[in-house]
Amino acid sequence: MGGGYNERHVDEAADQPILAIDLGGTQIRAAHVNPDATVACRRAVDTDDEEGVDAVVSRICELAAAVRADAQAAGLVGPVGIGIASPGPLDPWRGVVVAPPNLAGWHNVPLAARVEAAVGLPAFLERDTNVAIMAEWRFGAARGTRDAVYVTVSTGIGGGIVLNGRPLQGLDGTAGEVGHMTVELDGPLCGDGMPGHAEAIGSGTAIAREGRRLLATGAAPVLARLVPDADSVSAADVARAADEGDAACRAVLDRAWTAVGAMCASLVNVLNPEVIVLGGSIATHRPELIGAVRGEIDRRAFAAPARRVRVTLAEHGDDVSLIGSLAIVNERLTDPAYARDRSIPDSHPT
Amino acid sequence: MGGGYNERHVDEAADQPILAIDLGGTQIRAAHVNPDATVACRRAVDTDDEEGVDAVVSRICELAAAVRADAQAAGLVGPVGIGIASPGPLDPWRGVVVAPPNLAGWHNVPLAARVEAAVGLPAFLERDTNVAIMAEWRFGAARGTRDAVYVTVSTGIGGGIVLNGRPLQGLDGTAGEVGHMTVELDGPLCGDGMPGHAEAIGSGTAIAREGRRLLATGAAPVLARLVPDADSVSAADVARAADEGDAACRAVLDRAWTAVGAMCASLVNVLNPEVIVLGGSIATHRPELIGAVRGEIDRRAFAAPARRVRVTLAEHGDDVSLIGSLAIVNERLTDPAYARDRSIPDSHPT
Repeated sequence: MGGGYNERHVDEAADQPILAIDLGGTQIRAAHVNPDATVACRRAVDTDDEEGVDAVVSRICELAAAVRADAQAAGLVGPVGIGIASPGPLDPWRGVVVAPPNLAGWHNVPLAARVEAAVGLPAFLERDTNVAIMAEWRFGAARGTRDAVYVTVSTGIGGGIVLNGRPLQGLDGTAGEVGHMTVELDGPLCGDGMPGHAEAIGSGTAIAREGRRLLATGAAPVLARLVPDADSVSAADVARAADEGDAACRAVLDRAWTAVGAMCASLVNVLNPEVIVLGGSIATHRPELIGAVRGEIDRRAFAAPARRVRVTLAEHGDDVSLIGSLAIVNERLTDPAYARDRSIPDSHPT
Repeated sequence: MGGGYNERHVDEAADQPILAIDLGGTQIRAAHVNPDATVACRRAVDTDDEEGVDAVVSRICELAAAVRADAQAAGLVGPVGIGIASPGPLDPWRGVVVAPPNLAGWHNVPLAARVEAAVGLPAFLERDTNVAIMAEWRFGAARGTRDAVYVTVSTGIGGGIVLNGRPLQGLDGTAGEVGHMTVELDGPLCGDGMPGHAEAIGSGTAIAREGRRLLATGAAPVLARLVPDADSVSAADVARAADEGDAACRAVLDRAWTAVGAMCASLVNVLNPEVIVLGGSIATHRPELIGAVRGEIDRRAFAAPARRVRVTLAEHGDDVSLIGSLAIVNERLTDPAYARDRSIPDSHPT
């Protein structure tokens, strides 16, 4: 069983070094990544949206060029291409950043083409969660599997799906938005104003919101002692209060884990994957989440796929987007689908 | 955009005629299917579980042989293979029916191998919902799309997913069980005892259950007039009462459509497909479901994939499983993945 797909041949010995760029909301990081997935020649700058998109793009290009020079000076084999991990939505085929909610003013920016022209190497753009799952699938917790789901539980809930060894992108490059699955028909609104998404119950933002609500009603005495200013309550505060015996905070966490677990159980019933990899700051700091997700899968998913699926913590931390770019670039350099549409697109299509 | 996959080349002119078998809970149907997807030489027998699995399998083989003889007598070009659509769970690679809930006593039956040996043609087994989406994708409402979701809303809620032109099966052949996505964390139990699945709110079984509950509490006066015996309430009765002004029955239907719509919206966020095809008796008899699903997608899915996705009624009715087998057999005859594991497996592995 399990042989029903044309599995892609992965020849790790054939990987070539690459240059990786991780475009975060607060920092832009770049590094040289060796074929063995070790990271060298790191550099970083603040994102600083206020200087405008063009200035930020120029700084990204400068950063990439600087890392390339560092690697050359260090005697490393030169990179064959550039991988850029960015928040979505984006268009991976044309290399265009569409309109990420955490990068103000970025609309239809042809980032891959700009970096490619400036640095003189083929550049590929992919959503950060899709890059992360490629890191875990090629070099981490999902290694050796065919079908894998990556779920990041942090301020928000995002995800990436690998089927047959490549990210599932969907027709507009938006596939994998697992945090926006409805788990409560009339549940709380997410940041986009939509009701009942898993993210609106299970994310750090949701946990903090519930913490503030508890403080306002006087229902969380331990939390009130820990956090004098209700407006500054974080998910970590709620978790600490729960650990120190605050029953209401404990209930908020349990509800959050249930939402994440039910979401994962739905993915098990729909996709029948081999592994679910949990990453992100909340999964990292609250390993109890793994057991909770496992429990909800056993409670809500069919026996065969529930038995099949492994639930595990991500192996890569902050470097996950850098390492994933090694897989992305090496794959796409030889994939005609990504050569086809890489001409420089119109900078600001209407 | 949309070119990120190696799209499968579909050469319809190359289709060869096939023999199709549709294994339903009440009837087994067989027919000859021509390359243009027209159905000929139909035959059917009752399933009649009571005679035992071996007797039913023998009758399936006899039925297939009889249709083959009919087609020959009619001067039709002979079939190149046999497609068998069955309720899941099943193993499409080995051709084994695992344990369908509506076929009593069927456990690990190597049906494809048995039929293949008896009729002398290569036989392929697939879950009925996966066969249905292949019919709609090749010859119906999803024609010309790359990624499509089929949802059947009937006694239960099932589904099939096509990605890159082939059914998504998952590692155990159970992928596509969309009706078992959680849409209410603490919602009613489904037939498998699991809480909050879409099927437990949106299926015909769930609608009938709510109708009985309303009768028991005296809350549905029109329904009470229409159905003197509370135990015999069907989803169709609840719908008729709603049409005749029963507000409580109307609310039950609206809640059911919301559950189906939220489930579809989650699939839009996760898969970013081009089309969702709604089939099954409830979708067919209550076309208002299409509009309700569209509304929930607009309410709960991201703008880009929500704009992208088309929501439409299935084009094929009762023949959907027969027609879909034409696509399945022609594809699998040339796919090494399905040749690999088609040796006759152990009849009753532990």
